[in-house]
Amino acid sequence: MTVSHGTLAHRLIAEHLVDGRMEPGCQIGLRIDQALTQDATGTLVMQELEALGLDRVRTEVSVQYVDHNLLQADERNAEDHAFLRSACRRFGIWYSKPGNGVSHPTHMQYFGVPGRTLAGSDSHTCAAGSLGMLALGTGGLEVALAMTGRPLHLTMPEIWGIRLTGRLPDWVSAKDVVLEMLRRHGVKGAVNRILEYHGPGLAGLTAMDRHVIANMGAELGATTSVFPADDAVRDFLRAEDREADYQELAAERDAVYDLTEEIDLSALEPLIARPTSPGNVVPVRKVAGEPIGQSVIGSSANPGLRDFAIAAAIVAGRQTHSAVSFDVNPTTREILADLTRTGYTFDLIAAGARIHQAGCLGCIGMGQAPVPGRNSLRTFPRNFPGRSGTEDDAVWLCSPETATVSALTGEITDPREWAANEGVPYPRLHLPEHASVNRMTLEPPLPPEQAARVELERGPNISGLPSFDPLPDVLEGPVLLKCGDNVSTDEISPAGARALPYRSNIPKLAEFTFTRIDPDYPRRAAELATDGRPGPHFVLAGDNYGQGSSREHAAITPRHLGLRAVIALSYARIHWQNLANFGVLPLEFTDPADYHRIDVGDRLRLENLHAALAPGAEPLLRLHNTTKEETYRLRHHLPDDRRRTVLAGGIVPALARRDDEHRGGTG
Amino acid sequence: MTVSHGTLAHRLIAEHLVDGRMEPGCQIGLRIDQALTQDATGTLVMQELEALGLDRVRTEVSVQYVDHNLLQADERNAEDHAFLRSACRRFGIWYSKPGNGVSHPTHMQYFGVPGRTLAGSDSHTCAAGSLGMLALGTGGLEVALAMTGRPLHLTMPEIWGIRLTGRLPDWVSAKDVVLEMLRRHGVKGAVNRILEYHGPGLAGLTAMDRHVIANMGAELGATTSVFPADDAVRDFLRAEDREADYQELAAERDAVYDLTEEIDLSALEPLIARPTSPGNVVPVRKVAGEPIGQSVIGSSANPGLRDFAIAAAIVAGRQTHSAVSFDVNPTTREILADLTRTGYTFDLIAAGARIHQAGCLGCIGMGQAPVPGRNSLRTFPRNFPGRSGTEDDAVWLCSPETATVSALTGEITDPREWAANEGVPYPRLHLPEHASVNRMTLEPPLPPEQAARVELERGPNISGLPSFDPLPDVLEGPVLLKCGDNVSTDEISPAGARALPYRSNIPKLAEFTFTRIDPDYPRRAAELATDGRPGPHFVLAGDNYGQGSSREHAAITPRHLGLRAVIALSYARIHWQNLANFGVLPLEFTDPADYHRIDVGDRLRLENLHAALAPGAEPLLRLHNTTKEETYRLRHHLPDDRRRTVLAGGIVPALARRDDEHRGGTG
Repeated sequence: MTVSHGTLAHRLIAEHLVDGRMEPGCQIGLRIDQALTQDATGTLVMQELEALGLDRVRTEVSVQYVDHNLLQADERNAEDHAFLRSACRRFGIWYSKPGNGVSHPTHMQYFGVPGRTLAGSDSHTCAAGSLGMLALGTGGLEVALAMTGRPLHLTMPEIWGIRLTGRLPDWVSAKDVVLEMLRRHGVKGAVNRILEYHGPGLAGLTAMDRHVIANMGAELGATTSVFPADDAVRDFLRAEDREADYQELAAERDAVYDLTEEIDLSALEPLIARPTSPGNVVPVRKVAGEPIGQSVIGSSANPGLRDFAIAAAIVAGRQTHSAVSFDVNPTTREILADLTRTGYTFDLIAAGARIHQAGCLGCIGMGQAPVPGRNSLRTFPRNFPGRSGTEDDAVWLCSPETATVSALTGEITDPREWAANEGVPYPRLHLPEHASVNRMTLEPPLPPEQAARVELERGPNISGLPSFDPLPDVLEGPVLLKCGDNVSTDEISPAGARALPYRSNIPKLAEFTFTRIDPDYPRRAAELATDGRPGPHFVLAGDNYGQGSSREHAAITPRHLGLRAVIALSYARIHWQNLANFGVLPLEFTDPADYHRIDVGDRLRLENLHAALAPGAEPLLRLHNTTKEETYRLRHHLPDDRRRTVLAGGIVPALARRDDEHRGGTG
Repeated sequence: MTVSHGTLAHRLIAEHLVDGRMEPGCQIGLRIDQALTQDATGTLVMQELEALGLDRVRTEVSVQYVDHNLLQADERNAEDHAFLRSACRRFGIWYSKPGNGVSHPTHMQYFGVPGRTLAGSDSHTCAAGSLGMLALGTGGLEVALAMTGRPLHLTMPEIWGIRLTGRLPDWVSAKDVVLEMLRRHGVKGAVNRILEYHGPGLAGLTAMDRHVIANMGAELGATTSVFPADDAVRDFLRAEDREADYQELAAERDAVYDLTEEIDLSALEPLIARPTSPGNVVPVRKVAGEPIGQSVIGSSANPGLRDFAIAAAIVAGRQTHSAVSFDVNPTTREILADLTRTGYTFDLIAAGARIHQAGCLGCIGMGQAPVPGRNSLRTFPRNFPGRSGTEDDAVWLCSPETATVSALTGEITDPREWAANEGVPYPRLHLPEHASVNRMTLEPPLPPEQAARVELERGPNISGLPSFDPLPDVLEGPVLLKCGDNVSTDEISPAGARALPYRSNIPKLAEFTFTRIDPDYPRRAAELATDGRPGPHFVLAGDNYGQGSSREHAAITPRHLGLRAVIALSYARIHWQNLANFGVLPLEFTDPADYHRIDVGDRLRLENLHAALAPGAEPLLRLHNTTKEETYRLRHHLPDDRRRTVLAGGIVPALARRDDEHRGGTG
């Protein structure tokens, strides 16, 4: 067996390794240079910093973005924004206000530095791999711990080398590259892997093109994606007035990857993901002719100036179809400024576009919900059912070229065919060499002496962290829910305009838990409670449980309702961490067939948990089904430190206990 | 007593008079040339057209705008848009899609013609008085009837001549003119009056400046406002490629007004309406220094290119305060296009503004809700409590100059003082002579033969009109609610992101009725129901009941819950009509002191209603309070035709009955 080595991913990991061995499957701890939070996860992160007793963040830079909850249908979102700003001023964090845009491209523009590590409480944090960073999306509490200077722990992934050759044909763009990866490998294809892109095909991809590809590595389940820092990155940083932050970074010449792959860019064609999974990828030509009601350009999966400019160049002098809502969501303030000064914004307006404020918007179900059953084409990363805000939605994921041409025709259209029929050449874009850099709209950290005096502005919608009791030695309760494969965190704790404003209010948000799968789950969980304490229960799941968004609410809210153990066939990485971080046991069947032997309502029992989770104990447990009088063998992948965490009830109580012990020892 | 004559209002009325005498207080019927609906009221209008059996509208032009419900937090708004578009195609109506902007300025740009009458199901329809139109905001059913070719009925108002002299000083603009009117006369100052502006001061006011002033005539309670069609109007129409639509119109030289007023524009200063009424006007300097959290530019009360350009020119090269959300709501697609090609959009973006899609947005509580208790400055027309979406809001109304300068300083600031301190001259704007006219984004009516084949796209959120039973001869029931003065239709049937998506769904929307005043009203009304039929009840009110928005939902939803009579000290014009149109008796005390003798819960009884409401009968009724064993004298102002309507249960059943009689006569 060849041992992988010499890849850029190896170098980035080695330069930040504080514990563990760099062998796939081993736990490693990494020093984190930068941290990123957004408002939908950040309100909890700030409360966690408070619970951890932090005085001031210890990263090189930490930035709080406000990009998710922008609609402000009532006072809750504005309250959250005020709370976040006060917390940034208190803890020494940069604050990017509403209207500045989506965290990932904004971070890339103003803070991203090749060679640095970035931990972000958003699953698309991985997009910064476009700059040669090691960028890891993870649960909010992991980010909070990184902000306090603690290492970030993860499983050492395999490194998957993707060699790009050739150049993209006209009407095919970066989105089609990552859709091709999804077409080949599906939504679990890169679990516990880092996708490292290399090869001569890179020369034709700008830093923002690479952002598109790195971003949707999350949809493949990848730990992250990594691109070299080369001339394209230097050009990007120069345009942002930050050439000094550049350093060249690449794999060694004799690098060996754990897995290899090749994509000939010149052989790609326009692709599209059908409803309701990013993995349902087909060529656009195979679904051409389907009528559409909406087309949306934007999101961190197509954030670049180029992505909007190509849309504008296509519609310039034309009109979008009268039955189509053509929505344009600028991703950053800077990109909107550039798009505007180059005249492209004007072209979009004149063609009938709805130009929205910079931010995530419909990508996270904050507005732009389509008509039920009517096809909506989006350049977004995800199309999980209902994520759009419409229960019976039909959301497709594609490139700006496909989305824009389809907005003109009113039906799904292969842009190559439209161009040939209409005699339209592929637009050559005239983009400015220098960006509309404007750091004034970002609020820098206060000096420490001023920061120490800042009070947190806590409105009534900021609930505070609930308290979490330790894991009992015997866990018994019913199976309240049994779900299938690929359940996303959107289905566990939904996004959307109804639920999102409660992201800082755990008791209220908990009322939405699992309601996309089973509207009765919160009620049945509540019925188990005694004396106001939640009743312990189990959830069963299939493969890839907890894919998608990094929101730790998907662990906290079921835990708040009494969930103490999940038994699944397999887990998505971030959600597995989040469960452990908040004291929910993430267990697996040793025999997958046992999944079928257990039904909703069965009472399950785990005994001697304290001994079973002791450091060094075999990672095996016996599960008793007292209803069916059967016993199954389970396993877990919790390393010793995470066992302590789960036993304590989660990281926050675990750290509080350790602090108590410290005080006890020195007092 | 002088009899008024020779005013422009007289001329416009006379040219459209189909019945009645032009004496103040008399009922008149007017031929309607144009009709305007928006989506929050239009979904009902379209259902009314259907109920009325219309095949094709008979106005010169009717336009349906989609400007209110743009957030699309779930599928309901998008469903409404699809329904509205299909109804436009069916009935021969222009359709202006989401993103085209606010109805009033868009209508002015593309359809307004001096000398024409316009009926609109939006209270700010009066804004088109800026072009020398007679523009009347009214209930949706009145607009539906106008669309079928029937005359619009109203009470002949007094004509109030407002003579403007002088020129506005620097940092003072059109908004301050209408705020001065509100400062002098309050929110009831112009009830049953037309405000007709004239005099040499007009020369300094563009057509869009006049729109600002005409628009907020609604806040004074005016029937409408009228400006002459002069060179400013010709300039406006020329810029819109419609000079051919121009005709000069002015009052006669010897015109005599019922009331007269003079405003010396050069003596005005920046004004601001404090929370929570447009009538609470004070000079900005008196409240300077109050910290703010938000500042919003936009809405039909400051819609012009100039209003955004002045904001942009003030912030150009500066940064808005980091604690302030500076929201910019472009009013029309054309204005956003002009603002963008002139570079002003860029200046706004660079200064930290959030640029939103064109539409009403926060003005109608669709997003942009502020932090509770934190001051929000808005260039909007209304600041009724809670209309912003935040229960304990603190919304102030002011000019773009005041709102923008305050966004820079972070506190309420007299722009003159800021300019003097900073040495900033009042910006001279460079606005294009020719607008970015683009009619392609408006969908014209289909030819009749195509239209006849269109099916209405009725999603599950389109409830259909409820059926309304006739008024019984004896009405008995409890007083379910007693409210004070100036209750707005926002308090009867709220706007905002929670309620507005149900504007086409009466049973759901009814659950919000009066909840701003009494959250229990819907429940108590429901408890009166027997066998699924609503239980009749009464509501008591003070002066100016039903001010504000024209929404007929404020009559339909309480009627749906069983309201059969309101007894008030006085009514706002449009709501009084809406009550009668939907079969709710709008009654008044003859002795205002009786208002204080009746309490919530008292049972009231009206007898012999059919005789009392017979044509020609004295407009007096006796009201028995069976709880207190007292009797009071009431009056009403229903002319004979409206008596028939109320007796039948509303206009729709009245017309249906007449159609039945016709069929009976000829069958």
